[in-house]
Amino acid sequence: MEVTNKLESGNYAADISSIKEAQQRINPFIHKTSVLSSDTLNSISGRKLFFKCECFQKGGAFKFRGACNAIFSLKDEQAANGVVTHSSGNHAAAVSLAAKLRGIPAHIVIPKNAPKCKVENVRRYGGNVIWSDATMQSRESVANNVLQETGAVLVHPFNDGRIISGQGTISLELLEQIPQIDTIIVPISGGGLISGVALAAKSINPKIRILAAEPRGANDAALSMAAGEIVTLPQTNTIADGLRAFLGDLTWPIIRDFVDDVITVEDKDIIEAMRMCYEILKVAVEPSGAIGLAAVLSATFLENPAWKDCNNVAIILSGGNVDLGVLWESFNK
Amino acid sequence: MEVTNKLESGNYAADISSIKEAQQRINPFIHKTSVLSSDTLNSISGRKLFFKCECFQKGGAFKFRGACNAIFSLKDEQAANGVVTHSSGNHAAAVSLAAKLRGIPAHIVIPKNAPKCKVENVRRYGGNVIWSDATMQSRESVANNVLQETGAVLVHPFNDGRIISGQGTISLELLEQIPQIDTIIVPISGGGLISGVALAAKSINPKIRILAAEPRGANDAALSMAAGEIVTLPQTNTIADGLRAFLGDLTWPIIRDFVDDVITVEDKDIIEAMRMCYEILKVAVEPSGAIGLAAVLSATFLENPAWKDCNNVAIILSGGNVDLGVLWESFNK
Repeated sequence: MEVTNKLESGNYAADISSIKEAQQRINPFIHKTSVLSSDTLNSISGRKLFFKCECFQKGGAFKFRGACNAIFSLKDEQAANGVVTHSSGNHAAAVSLAAKLRGIPAHIVIPKNAPKCKVENVRRYGGNVIWSDATMQSRESVANNVLQETGAVLVHPFNDGRIISGQGTISLELLEQIPQIDTIIVPISGGGLISGVALAAKSINPKIRILAAEPRGANDAALSMAAGEIVTLPQTNTIADGLRAFLGDLTWPIIRDFVDDVITVEDKDIIEAMRMCYEILKVAVEPSGAIGLAAVLSATFLENPAWKDCNNVAIILSGGNVDLGVLWESFNK
Repeated sequence: MEVTNKLESGNYAADISSIKEAQQRINPFIHKTSVLSSDTLNSISGRKLFFKCECFQKGGAFKFRGACNAIFSLKDEQAANGVVTHSSGNHAAAVSLAAKLRGIPAHIVIPKNAPKCKVENVRRYGGNVIWSDATMQSRESVANNVLQETGAVLVHPFNDGRIISGQGTISLELLEQIPQIDTIIVPISGGGLISGVALAAKSINPKIRILAAEPRGANDAALSMAAGEIVTLPQTNTIADGLRAFLGDLTWPIIRDFVDDVITVEDKDIIEAMRMCYEILKVAVEPSGAIGLAAVLSATFLENPAWKDCNNVAIILSGGNVDLGVLWESFNK
């Protein structure tokens, strides 16, 4: 089935209409983020690169778009008891901030291994921090307890149509800012970001290529695409703390149908990409946020004949919440 | 004499016409830089702050605007033997890049204490590095020798109408991006940046306040304003390596007549401002570049009744060339 027919089938958790509605809903609250470019990086990659700086989004990551859309979609009676979520950090801060703007409580389940700066962001925005173990099972089980105790509403970090729609607003902005984009490289974890970005971009121009960037140590999306079904891993091992989740039943069909390829990269290349973001673009980008630059500079991308006519490539720098000490230490390993 | 009468007197090395001509000349080459904002920083300062990110300019600093204007103003016969300059770094890289674009050689005299990343920038853009001692006397004397040997043209880092005009294009851009600006805070060193910014901004709106930000350890501009004439210091002592020069005979009259005040800040506050730029704005800013944020957060600014109605304050983040190790070490002192 053609891309356009699939898009019109109504088979997915979000579509171009829900994404445009999200844009109307969240525009009063979000930053329209800058797009940066660099002759130096264009020269290194041999393509024209456009960096969509979601690290400049409120809360320091794209997550605020989806959280804002989800929380402002709630009816007053739904919102009354507040919201709950579990997140390694950026979604947590985003939910805290959006709940604060809506004037409702936010209960945030955070795994013990979350970066310090991300926990501080949650507290800065008034979120109520509840600790869990690092596993997804522990995160979900603690969140369920909080849901039952508080009567609050769950705002899932990715497996939710309102979240997917919110993240999709990035493509609406990006393609207005740089209409000639022919390829978008997007970090993949649970898949909320890339689902929204792919739906919106392919609805505007079905020829745009959507490429996922994934760490080798958490390569469940690449394995899922190869297997034709959701694959999970017994454990993950990557510096990219935001990219350790697995696909959900709402994000998977969108990824299966609209993501053109998954590019896996090594942690050392993610660290080098962070360094380039800092030294050349002058932007603080966390490991998960810099992976798109690592992907576009990888042999996997540059030497694949399928991508040789990807000339105007957008890279979503998805977040900027990185402890400076961690950055410095990772550069010196 | 009224501001407007002074502006129309023709008594200065640049004016709104030369600045608009500079904009026409350099627009094909420069980045139109983003303006960022942050609710967190607005809340801390009690003002609406708008950060003009010249750290995203080509070469990593505003200096490329002036260098580009100066070098592309040269007639072919003037340009034939190339250009010479002396600079602690950002102007050096800017001249190297502009000369490369024009296709002429650039001879760059650099003091031995210049930051490593700035010297690397010069080499990246093909500049011919010639070392001098750290003093302004040594810089100027080595540059004079190179001028005589090569027959090249001097592109002074600030005391030059073409440089001042190029830097002034920042105000043209800024006031188009954020028309409600009522105050602009600008780092001051030799005065090329603030001269251009002040001339353009006051020509567009004479009521705009122009405030200079200067390190306590290199407070020659504050002393000059108090004395009514150029004051120099026997030595300077500040982390802000780009703010150690003294005013020139072309920049001084503009500063005397159009800068409303000089705010001096301590190095520890500059370092804290760098940290805020990194952690909150997600932008890499060098010490000299972050000083405007330190100034707007200082008691000197916030508690001065003269500035209590400065509500929409632009801060020029003038450069982003900072060695990450230096940043990290300065945070841990």
